[in-house]
Amino acid sequence: MPTLFKKPREIRNYLRSVKCEGKTIGFVPTMGYLHDGHRKLIRDSKVDNHMTVVSIYVNPLQFGEGEDFQSYPRDLDRDISICEEEGVDVVFAPGDEDMYAEMPSLRVEIPGLTDILEGSFRPGHFNGVCIVLLKFFSILQPDRAYFGEKDYQQLKVVQRLVKDLSLPVEIVPVPTVRDHDGLALSSRNTYLTAEERESALSLYRSFLLAEKFFKEGQRNSELLRETIRNFILQHPHVNGIDYVEIRDENLMPVEEVKEGDRILLAVRIGKTRLIDNWRLGNEEL
Amino acid sequence: MPTLFKKPREIRNYLRSVKCEGKTIGFVPTMGYLHDGHRKLIRDSKVDNHMTVVSIYVNPLQFGEGEDFQSYPRDLDRDISICEEEGVDVVFAPGDEDMYAEMPSLRVEIPGLTDILEGSFRPGHFNGVCIVLLKFFSILQPDRAYFGEKDYQQLKVVQRLVKDLSLPVEIVPVPTVRDHDGLALSSRNTYLTAEERESALSLYRSFLLAEKFFKEGQRNSELLRETIRNFILQHPHVNGIDYVEIRDENLMPVEEVKEGDRILLAVRIGKTRLIDNWRLGNEEL
Repeated sequence: MPTLFKKPREIRNYLRSVKCEGKTIGFVPTMGYLHDGHRKLIRDSKVDNHMTVVSIYVNPLQFGEGEDFQSYPRDLDRDISICEEEGVDVVFAPGDEDMYAEMPSLRVEIPGLTDILEGSFRPGHFNGVCIVLLKFFSILQPDRAYFGEKDYQQLKVVQRLVKDLSLPVEIVPVPTVRDHDGLALSSRNTYLTAEERESALSLYRSFLLAEKFFKEGQRNSELLRETIRNFILQHPHVNGIDYVEIRDENLMPVEEVKEGDRILLAVRIGKTRLIDNWRLGNEEL
Repeated sequence: MPTLFKKPREIRNYLRSVKCEGKTIGFVPTMGYLHDGHRKLIRDSKVDNHMTVVSIYVNPLQFGEGEDFQSYPRDLDRDISICEEEGVDVVFAPGDEDMYAEMPSLRVEIPGLTDILEGSFRPGHFNGVCIVLLKFFSILQPDRAYFGEKDYQQLKVVQRLVKDLSLPVEIVPVPTVRDHDGLALSSRNTYLTAEERESALSLYRSFLLAEKFFKEGQRNSELLRETIRNFILQHPHVNGIDYVEIRDENLMPVEEVKEGDRILLAVRIGKTRLIDNWRLGNEEL
């Protein structure tokens, strides 16, 4: 069984003594309802570090009004079982009263990065992400922290946060884990009906289509984006596309697409908002 | 002699091993050109902690355009001598290339706190203060950090920063140190000519005047502020008053003044901008 902590002060003291024994700490921040994507993060951490800490906390500060904070799936017992299966050493599952005894009035932004894409559709989202991560980093003092490329913009925000504040933690990106049919794993997939899930596959398939055109020589960003949009919109239950963008690896806009650029999109299927992204020039295909 | 470090990585590793020996670290952040106010911070730290670290770094990020970053007084050898006299264990004097290999694009603000008073006259100032302190805290991992009440708003910003991000450092406020004639010590006092220095005493004397009226029963904030403004403006070389405010201890505006409220002001004397503040109901008088 992993050791379960709920109190920041207790886990801080515990990990401080662990670090003084010369052990490295790998940190996997999650909002729980763990899936195989989380398992991959945990496995990578276990390879790199002496000790792996998983946080399970649905952070209210990164949800906007009208978003799914209340309905976000939660099952701590199941999560702890999965952590046990994966050999996680420590689970940190604080309550809101531990993390936000008082709501922070401080705000963090990275102009040009937290206000684009997800940030423009979810104002305040990355502020919440940055603040909870600064708290976790401060409480846990990990040597490495693991982030899925599924949330590509989040990864970029965290890398910039760590660099700009000289935080002593290495951010390790982990490739997106997809289901057998290509759907990117996400705790929010549980919201989808079977029919909606079928339509959600259009995200992955639109990437394959764009990748095919790219390999055939298509370099026009606008044209590739239109192809993706049109393909996705053909599917039932698609309630709207928040954005389909192609950006360079630092999320700067591109006109002429090149290998390594990313397609990023957010699509509403039924009542569920899904995000996904794809690196063009994917060698696995 | 204190041990001198210039490289963040080296001092981080050194202090990490110190902490693992169970020793506590007190941190005194300074921009150098040390005076008796700094000595007081150092002495307080030495009483509370096993080891005292003084940083000496003129942080470019907290200066605005047209401010005195270039002319700010610097004398590292003299500062190190003072640190030696005071028994400082470690001096951290990084270069700009160590602190800002790349300029941060991240921005920190605390609405209602970083955008008032100094923040409204020095836009970006507290962003620079917060970022450099987050870097220092991350590099040094101090148990306690010492801040003079002379920069009262800065103290409040730092306390909020630490609380909102759950940083494991105790912020220790240290009362303002004044010269024999009442002038609050500041490295910027070196800018003043003898005549200007005489006029600068009007800041302290205006506090004494307000304190006298307060003790006599005057509770009207607007009236006390007018008294202070008029008194200061009578003096030669006074080039303008940026603000005279009376706030509660959390810097919220007050109409009816009570004990513990603070007078805060910023005054330009010749080319020098001075700030000072005063706690009403001062028991020493």
